[in-house]
Amino acid sequence: MTRIVQKFGGSSVATAEHIKRVASLIAQRSRAGEQVVVVVSAMGDTTDDLLALAAQITPRGRAREMDMLLSTGEIVSSALLSMALQEQGIPAISLTGQQAGIRTSGEHARARIDAVRADRLEGELGQGNVVIVAGFQGISEDQDVTTLGRGGSDTTAVALAAALSADACEIYTDVAGIYTADPRVCPQARPLRDIGYEEMLELATTGARVMHARAVELGAIYNVPILVRSSFDPAAPGTIIRKETIMEQGNKVRAIAHENRVGKVTLRGVPDHPGIAAMVFEPLSEAGVSVDTIVQNASVERLTDLTFTVEPDDLPRAIEVIEAMRQEIGAAEIVTADNLGTVSVVGTGMASAPGYAARMFRALTDEGVNVEMISTGDIRITCVIAADRVADAVRALHAAFELDRA
Amino acid sequence: MTRIVQKFGGSSVATAEHIKRVASLIAQRSRAGEQVVVVVSAMGDTTDDLLALAAQITPRGRAREMDMLLSTGEIVSSALLSMALQEQGIPAISLTGQQAGIRTSGEHARARIDAVRADRLEGELGQGNVVIVAGFQGISEDQDVTTLGRGGSDTTAVALAAALSADACEIYTDVAGIYTADPRVCPQARPLRDIGYEEMLELATTGARVMHARAVELGAIYNVPILVRSSFDPAAPGTIIRKETIMEQGNKVRAIAHENRVGKVTLRGVPDHPGIAAMVFEPLSEAGVSVDTIVQNASVERLTDLTFTVEPDDLPRAIEVIEAMRQEIGAAEIVTADNLGTVSVVGTGMASAPGYAARMFRALTDEGVNVEMISTGDIRITCVIAADRVADAVRALHAAFELDRA
Repeated sequence: MTRIVQKFGGSSVATAEHIKRVASLIAQRSRAGEQVVVVVSAMGDTTDDLLALAAQITPRGRAREMDMLLSTGEIVSSALLSMALQEQGIPAISLTGQQAGIRTSGEHARARIDAVRADRLEGELGQGNVVIVAGFQGISEDQDVTTLGRGGSDTTAVALAAALSADACEIYTDVAGIYTADPRVCPQARPLRDIGYEEMLELATTGARVMHARAVELGAIYNVPILVRSSFDPAAPGTIIRKETIMEQGNKVRAIAHENRVGKVTLRGVPDHPGIAAMVFEPLSEAGVSVDTIVQNASVERLTDLTFTVEPDDLPRAIEVIEAMRQEIGAAEIVTADNLGTVSVVGTGMASAPGYAARMFRALTDEGVNVEMISTGDIRITCVIAADRVADAVRALHAAFELDRA
Repeated sequence: MTRIVQKFGGSSVATAEHIKRVASLIAQRSRAGEQVVVVVSAMGDTTDDLLALAAQITPRGRAREMDMLLSTGEIVSSALLSMALQEQGIPAISLTGQQAGIRTSGEHARARIDAVRADRLEGELGQGNVVIVAGFQGISEDQDVTTLGRGGSDTTAVALAAALSADACEIYTDVAGIYTADPRVCPQARPLRDIGYEEMLELATTGARVMHARAVELGAIYNVPILVRSSFDPAAPGTIIRKETIMEQGNKVRAIAHENRVGKVTLRGVPDHPGIAAMVFEPLSEAGVSVDTIVQNASVERLTDLTFTVEPDDLPRAIEVIEAMRQEIGAAEIVTADNLGTVSVVGTGMASAPGYAARMFRALTDEGVNVEMISTGDIRITCVIAADRVADAVRALHAAFELDRA
């Protein structure tokens, strides 16, 4: 018997009507004899509404209580989806993250899944139920409700697929799969039929919002093929994320990712001695600031410039942390900016062939886009550029790497 | 160290501002050195909003999924109240019904509390936390979320007070206590300083909505004194519900209760043989219809009329059940009405002194109110009357029994 895990995001279950439509999609699969586990996000703006409510009470609610609060959004949508299935004559049951056996670490707001105790899930499937699991949440060793961070429902889905040895994990979202670039920015963008875990991971961490990076990572570890498709256009084939098949793909760029806004912090005139990076980045990590690109210039007279980018929302906190230890670091000056964005080219082929960086910089130069920072990975090159040139850069790169051709 | 349980209803936590005010009330007690456990209902109309959402999906959602859905309302308010206390510098933690150890029967939507496993509660109190417990909910043996039925948060509070051997259980609501009659109907109504469990139970089951009957019952069993007071007027003394002190009170009517609307079903020409009542009322009970007053007339030629009242919302279901077995019962005719109400006089003193019924009927007659049905208990007399005369009847009885005098 085929066993699948399906995940529906917040926009797919935004209203009662949406929920009924999603129930019909699930019902088809159940009637076809498949065992179905469904992971749901909170309806539409529920999470933001709950955050706004908390903000009326306290500027920064403690993470444990915020998790308790936010976890309710997914419980509501899972109960409603279960009712919608029952209404269509499909036996169904909703489970909280705890009931689904999702055990996590105790780090509230960014818990990691330690294990899935699937006894109840297996039991419910065995009884012929479609099982609806509240995404994004789990339970810590202390029996406290935890959440997995933004996009955590993707992670829930992949973890369940791995634990249940599911034949497939299908992520339903509001776009028809992974594109060669964001179609809203680049009309020439094409949907990809498949993509490797590593490539998808690079895309997810450099701005492609379709899939949550941790879910991709988990998929890679447990070798769970992940099918990304649209709940609004279920006939479209979607994109399958699976083990790289480098030989077939050849040395190609697969896609362009971008971020419209990043924050940048530069520490000028930092004494270049061992341990300076740890001194800067450990406190940022402790403050929960996620640092992306880091660039350190060659030192001149034992002084160097250290630059890094952060999520724009984290910029004030990053500045606060850095200012607090400026004396200790011995930085001459701290410069910040938030009018920047990034554009990245990603492709496994890049690892084995030279010339991609040159081609990228040439395309940006021809477009008149100035590159402020560069960082490279095995299968990725990222340029930090002016925020107002990001869209132009995406289009120029998409054309330069001939991504409009299949 | 004094230990108290406080319960705040939905209107007391309707908005973020309300929640902050409630937090201030709690903080005072905590700062005064008391150990405080707080039970909260869902904010304002949350429960009704969730019911409306479910109604968009299915006309009658299964009870298990409805419980899952509705339980989220109390989790939201408890997390927010915990944050509000922390914001005021008071250590606090929110717990779901499950985390608070509230074990219930498996009857969804109307579960009964079987036990409270108070280990975690005791632990949190021991660490100096104010503990906020999501009311109205518990967990069944199958680890499913259950709810206790309307007003169940009162029951949660009294059960916790019993399990924790609390010194007091305070129910905060939107009125200043228990009145001699509903002040909205009868301006002469006075707040009572105290009332016995039995009297309160009769009032609660005959229309006084201030306290949930099951909570009073639980208070009586475990001898938990329950103080009912207003969260909007915390200086008012409120009413304490405790063991009857008949000697002091003498033979008096304590209060008038009323229900604005009840449904009535009459089975005419029913063969008067043993077992007929069971034949009628067992299927009603199984269908979840709660029957109030039952009256059976003396039989004429072995035929009798059987009349009972139900909640108006339950009337369609009651009719459905009765029509289905009309043949079997052998009733000549089924007559229903929903334009009726009730008025009740309640008082322990009535048990030991005659003449109360006569005085009640006289007062109603003088007011020109026709009595359709009568039912009596040890300390209560209830008359079913026309719905549009209920308010007049309450005022007339309040005057006749001199309840406006202290």
